[in-house]
Order: sequence, then C-alpha cells, then structure tokens
Amino acid sequence: MKILIIGATGTIGQAIVSELESKHQIIKASRSQGDILIDLSSSASINSAFAKLTNLDAVICAAGAVAFAPFNEMTREQWDIGINSRLMGQIYLVQQAARILNDNGSITLTTGIIADHSISTGISAATLSGAIHHFVPHVALELTRGIRVNCVSPSVLTESLDTYADYFPGFQSISAKEVAQYYVRAVEGVETGKVFKAYKNN
Amino acid sequence: MKILIIGATGTIGQAIVSELESKHQIIKASRSQGDILIDLSSSASINSAFAKLTNLDAVICAAGAVAFAPFNEMTREQWDIGINSRLMGQIYLVQQAARILNDNGSITLTTGIIADHSISTGISAATLSGAIHHFVPHVALELTRGIRVNCVSPSVLTESLDTYADYFPGFQSISAKEVAQYYVRAVEGVETGKVFKAYKNN
Ligand SMILES: NC(=O)c1ccc[n+]([C@@H]2O[C@H](COP(=O)([O-])OP(=O)(O)OC[C@H]3O[C@@H](n4cnc5c(N)ncnc54)[C@H](OP(=O)(O)O)[C@@H]3O)[C@@H](O)[C@H]2O)c1
Ligand SMILES: NC(=O)c1ccc[n+]([C@@H]2O[C@H](COP(=O)([O-])OP(=O)(O)OC[C@H]3O[C@@H](n4cnc5c(N)ncnc54)[C@H](OP(=O)(O)O)[C@@H]3O)[C@@H](O)[C@H]2O)c1
Repeated sequence: MKILIIGATGTIGQAIVSELESKHQIIKASRSQGDILIDLSSSASINSAFAKLTNLDAVICAAGAVAFAPFNEMTREQWDIGINSRLMGQIYLVQQAARILNDNGSITLTTGIIADHSISTGISAATLSGAIHHFVPHVALELTRGIRVNCVSPSVLTESLDTYADYFPGFQSISAKEVAQYYVRAVEGVETGKVFKAYKNN
Repeated sequence: MKILIIGATGTIGQAIVSELESKHQIIKASRSQGDILIDLSSSASINSAFAKLTNLDAVICAAGAVAFAPFNEMTREQWDIGINSRLMGQIYLVQQAARILNDNGSITLTTGIIADHSISTGISAATLSGAIHHFVPHVALELTRGIRVNCVSPSVLTESLDTYADYFPGFQSISAKEVAQYYVRAVEGVETGKVFKAYKNN
C-alpha cells in the first residue's frame, strides 16, 4: 500500500513508520521535513499537498496540537489552536482524503487519553479529542467506496514521560511500538468507525 | 433561586420555565426577546449581559445551533456555526458564569442524542455535542466555590416531530415536560460533571 503519514518525524509517527515501512511504501510528511510538507492546521496546505499526491491507499495523521492551560484562563485564541489542528485539521483531512484515496482506502486519526481521563490543564485536549471520538463513528457511515476511518487514542507514551510524567501521576504509559500496532490494525485490518483506546479503563 | 434561562422562548426553554417558575425567580433570555437579550454565539453579548446580572444561582442554556449538511459538502463556515454556538458559546458561557454565579450555583448546558446516535446530515451535531459531553465532566473538576456544571442531551422532542420526524426514523421522542425534569435535577440536585442522556440506549 501507499501510505501518507503526517507527523512522521514525531515520537508516534516514527514508531508507525518503523512498523509499516517493510511492507508498504511510506510518504512522510510534517510541517518542516519529509517527502512532502503539510501543515495540518491549514486547509490550503492540505489541498496543495493532496493536489500532488496520487494513488494513496491510506492516510495516517500522527500530529495535532492543543493548548494546555487552566480553564478559567483559556482564551478563544488558545481554544483555536486545538480547533484548527486537532479538530478541524483532522476533520478537513478526512474530507479531502475521502476524495482522493483509492477505493477501500483508510484514514487514521490521533487523539489521546485525556478525552476520557482528566489531567491538569487538559480541558482543550479533553474537549477536542472527545469531539473526534464522536466524529469518527458518525463520519464512518458517510464515507463511500469502502473507505474506512478510525482513530487511535494513546495513553501518555513511555518515550514522552521525561516531558509529561508530572501531568500523568500514576497513569500507565504505553510504548510507541505498542501504540503503533493500533495504526497497523487500522490500516491493514477491516474495522471502521472505531476509536482504539490504547489504555486500560483506568 | 435566581435562574437565568437562555433560550427561554424555545420548545425546551418554555418547558423549563414552566417547571421552575413557581419556586424560583426566572430571568428569561434569548437573542430577540425576554428580560435580557443574549446571543450565545457572541462573547461580547455574554459579557454585556453578565455585566448587568447579579446574584445569580443558576444559568441554564437551552439554545445552541449547528449546521445540518452531508459531511462531504460541509464548509468551514458551516462548521463554524456550531463551533461558535454549541461548542464555544456554551464553553464561554461556563467560563463567565463561573465568575459571577453565587457560591454553590449551577450551570446546565444542552446538547442532543445525535452525539451518540447518528442521523442523516448530523455530523456537526454529533461532533460538537460530543465535544460538550467530554468538556462537562472535565470542567466540573476545575470549577470552584461549589459551582456545579451538567448537560442535558435530549432525544428528539415529541413537540418537534412535525419538523424533524423524518430525520429520526424509529427513534423514541421525549416530551418537553419530561426533558425539563433533567434541568430541574441539574439545578436543584447535587450532581456535577454529568451528561443527562434523556433517551434510552437505543
Ligand atoms: N506523546 C504522547 O505521550 C502522546 C500521547 C497521546 C496523544 N499524543 C498525540 O499524538 C500526536 C503526536 O504526538 P507525538 O508525541 O508523536 O508528537 P511529536 O513527537 O511532537 O511529533 C509531532 C509530529 O507532528 C508534526 N507536526 C506538528 N505539528 C504539525 C502540523 N500542524 N502539521 C503537520 N505536522 C505537524 C511534527 O513535525 P513538524 O514540527 O516538522 O511539523 C512531528 O513530525 C499529537 O497529536 C499528540 O497530542 C501524544
Ligand atoms: N427540539 C428538539 O427536538 C431538540 C432535541 C435535542 C436537542 N435540542 C437542542 O436544544 C436546544 C433548544 O432546542 P429547541 O427545540 O427548544 O429550540 P427552539 O424551539 O428553536 O428555541 C431556541 C431558543 O433559543 C433561542 N436562541 C436561538 N439562538 C440563540 C442564540 N444564538 N443565543 C441566544 N438564544 C438563542 C431562541 O430565541 P431567539 O431566536 O429569540 O434567540 C429560542 O428561545 C438547541 O440547542 C437544540 O439543538 C433540541
């Protein structure tokens, strides 16, 4: 398969590349490096990349920003970081990928555990990842030509504990390699409309 | 209690007023009529209303718009209708109400069954009501002074079947009077962080 991975240079993206590259042709993307440059938060950037890409079988998004701040201090500008990236960036990506993907192609999005389990300053992550968790099962019913859509919602990554451990006290982390298996399942499997929760109900 | 109801002239709002007005002082609001004018989709309008209101014990939002359209035709402008009203309108309302409410006050938002059960053209309602379903339990943990926040997610109203029946084939409707009981529970009860699903898991 020919697979576009947005965020291919990230902690999760690199692990997905490692799991998929032996069997598939990978097109790496991010804002600053890769085979093609894409800014998830810009519909113009998505359009211009998709005008150049042909014959794709899968699109994986392993990028997406949100602001972290106490709720009472959150400004609309901070909310808009996540609205334009995590929420509307991924939604626009699904809309445009659904037009250009080969029949029976797949789209896989990324959210995170904060949708279900609260952490300090996580209100925007909770709300906007939660929005994607509702978007995915509904949009799956509207896609045509056998195109599937799923979402992976990881716990904090073991590789990211250096940076984030204090925000996830007592949470069980997951390795990037384990998380990547959910993307393999989303791309090579048959499921659609699923949110793969890469954490125990903890 | 002194209770502000935004959308007080609507199908749901009127029923809430009927259930609460014998025991409480009701301040009715909407864009076009009532004791005070508020446009939920405008932060300036919320600010200017809240600058005039004092001594509130509860704020109920029984308003909130989303666009209805097939996913592949949805424009960012259509998404923004819901983002500015259902999502950020209600989020901004919580942020500002949390500042001015009396201690132990409450805020009650409104979403709808489409978050959990898909209907044609409902992708924005599903996504943005879903976002509020994740926002509410998280934000409840950040509110101070005993202020509570909940959300009522009604099935299609029996009173609205004339307009919406074709979109909800076989769905069980609920009467406005029954839905209003959830708002009574949210205002007069003790619960917080809850999404009251005014429908069976059907
Ligand atoms: N790490 C965790 O513990 C964890 C847990 C749960 C969920 N997540 C989520 O998973 C996603 C990836 O996380 P990560 O830790 O792998 O991130 P990361 O290591 O910071 O890498 C992010 C990747 O995405 C790219 N990127 C950033 N902004 C972009 C944009 N607007 N458009 C296109 N590409 C963009 C980055 O490259 P450029 O900077 O060059 O664009 C990089 O390739 C994020 O949405 C994150 O919230 C992470
Ligand atoms: N009816 C149903 O079957 C049903 C089911 C589930 C969920 N809901 C949701 O419940 C809420 C109320 O529904 P409803 O059927 O009662 O609506 P409705 O009968 O159309 O009444 C809407 C009320 O909200 C006010 N309003 C509309 N836009 C507003 C804004 N931007 N700012 C402030 N007030 C505004 C209206 O007055 P003005 O026009 O004067 O502002 C009116 O008082 C909506 O969010 C709807 O999506 C409805």
